[in-house]
Amino acid sequence: MIYIIGMGLDSYKDISLRSLEILKKADKIYFENYTSLQQKPISQLEEYIGKPIVICNRDSVESEDFFFKEALDNVIVILVAGTPLFATTHIGLLVKGREMNIPVEVIHNASILNIYGCLGLYSYHHGKTVSIPYFTEDWRPLSFFNNILTNIKCGLHTLCLLDIKVDENRYMSVNEALNQILSIKNDVVNEKYKVFAVCRFGSPDQFIKYGTIEELIKINFGKPLHSLVIPAQMDTIEKELVEELYGNKL
Amino acid sequence: MIYIIGMGLDSYKDISLRSLEILKKADKIYFENYTSLQQKPISQLEEYIGKPIVICNRDSVESEDFFFKEALDNVIVILVAGTPLFATTHIGLLVKGREMNIPVEVIHNASILNIYGCLGLYSYHHGKTVSIPYFTEDWRPLSFFNNILTNIKCGLHTLCLLDIKVDENRYMSVNEALNQILSIKNDVVNEKYKVFAVCRFGSPDQFIKYGTIEELIKINFGKPLHSLVIPAQMDTIEKELVEELYGNKL
Repeated sequence: MIYIIGMGLDSYKDISLRSLEILKKADKIYFENYTSLQQKPISQLEEYIGKPIVICNRDSVESEDFFFKEALDNVIVILVAGTPLFATTHIGLLVKGREMNIPVEVIHNASILNIYGCLGLYSYHHGKTVSIPYFTEDWRPLSFFNNILTNIKCGLHTLCLLDIKVDENRYMSVNEALNQILSIKNDVVNEKYKVFAVCRFGSPDQFIKYGTIEELIKINFGKPLHSLVIPAQMDTIEKELVEELYGNKL
Repeated sequence: MIYIIGMGLDSYKDISLRSLEILKKADKIYFENYTSLQQKPISQLEEYIGKPIVICNRDSVESEDFFFKEALDNVIVILVAGTPLFATTHIGLLVKGREMNIPVEVIHNASILNIYGCLGLYSYHHGKTVSIPYFTEDWRPLSFFNNILTNIKCGLHTLCLLDIKVDENRYMSVNEALNQILSIKNDVVNEKYKVFAVCRFGSPDQFIKYGTIEELIKINFGKPLHSLVIPAQMDTIEKELVEELYGNKL
């Protein structure tokens, strides 16, 4: 049996009672830390449950055979920061489980998608989510930006996930993302465009700031993870809510 | 102090350790049951924490004053099935809290949005979410359907939330939703179009079925909550994953 358990956004305290029951009966516990980032160290959970947790890398999860061999006779848990299947990275585990007739159960949790609604924007007005990758000198993919422009044109807000490179300990900041965006010539998303910086969402030190790109780009937002929400034209109620919650009057 | 706590998708076991700590110190606990549905009775949580939970209706939550008066001297919890802010119904509580200088903290949890990625479809290929309302004889709003068609045209999948009327104990079934869709004349989403029925997502008796509308419309999917996902054209990898996980070959 394999359980893929979402750990939520901040610490081991975000796991559910159901997840805790599973961890108690687990024979082996793995922690996958390359698709997202847990704010607090995994050692806190190790201490809390009194069992060792093995950190595994992309290769070991993607080779999979590894887990399935063990899962024939053991209860295996794979812990994932946030919620497990959003990035579809782990959907291969479900497929393999079917093929090998080994049950794979997913325990969902909160993820960055929970930001929908929190900003005062209607969840129904969110369009396609995009990922902003680190540009290099000779690699500047612009499809994410075209998707943002299409969303704006259709009146839809865009949640932008920012690149993470765990091996290099690089997590794209709001500032880096905004610099990349400003480097793309266009008539819509310029210095005066107002966006939301969303930092450490769901943690006690969560910080959300709404302002023009030129304002936000100067702020030090602190530790990762950071995200951006680029709103399209808001309707009257959205404007009011955003102003009340994140406007300059507060 | 007010905490708005997401209960997740199935039972009290889906609350987090952090939520449990808050419930233990709470002076008064309310349960809001009209924006979503918890699969298991709230009495299970009452028994588990050994405290009474007051069920409150839309009026009492929306009048708000009620909670804020109590919150001046007490720790108040408002429990919400799923996750609190997705529907923006409760964002008024955040605004009021700011105005009255009473802290309002939100504890996020899994919600129907966690279906993204679970079907084998890329999360990034999901467009605008829609709600399908119950049609009446003289009220047949079609904006949801236009949004589905726009998503399809743009190559984006649509998560469709189905109407709930808690006071009348009516929760729209997949069958009712599909019947309403077929009643709308169009050349795209017809009997042969393949969609996903998503039933009791996140519960142990979760049931997901992929098939043509004419196939699905005949199936009894059991208890609420039901949702639909209407995919647009899938890419090669999505097709493979969907076939492996939900195709007829299994």
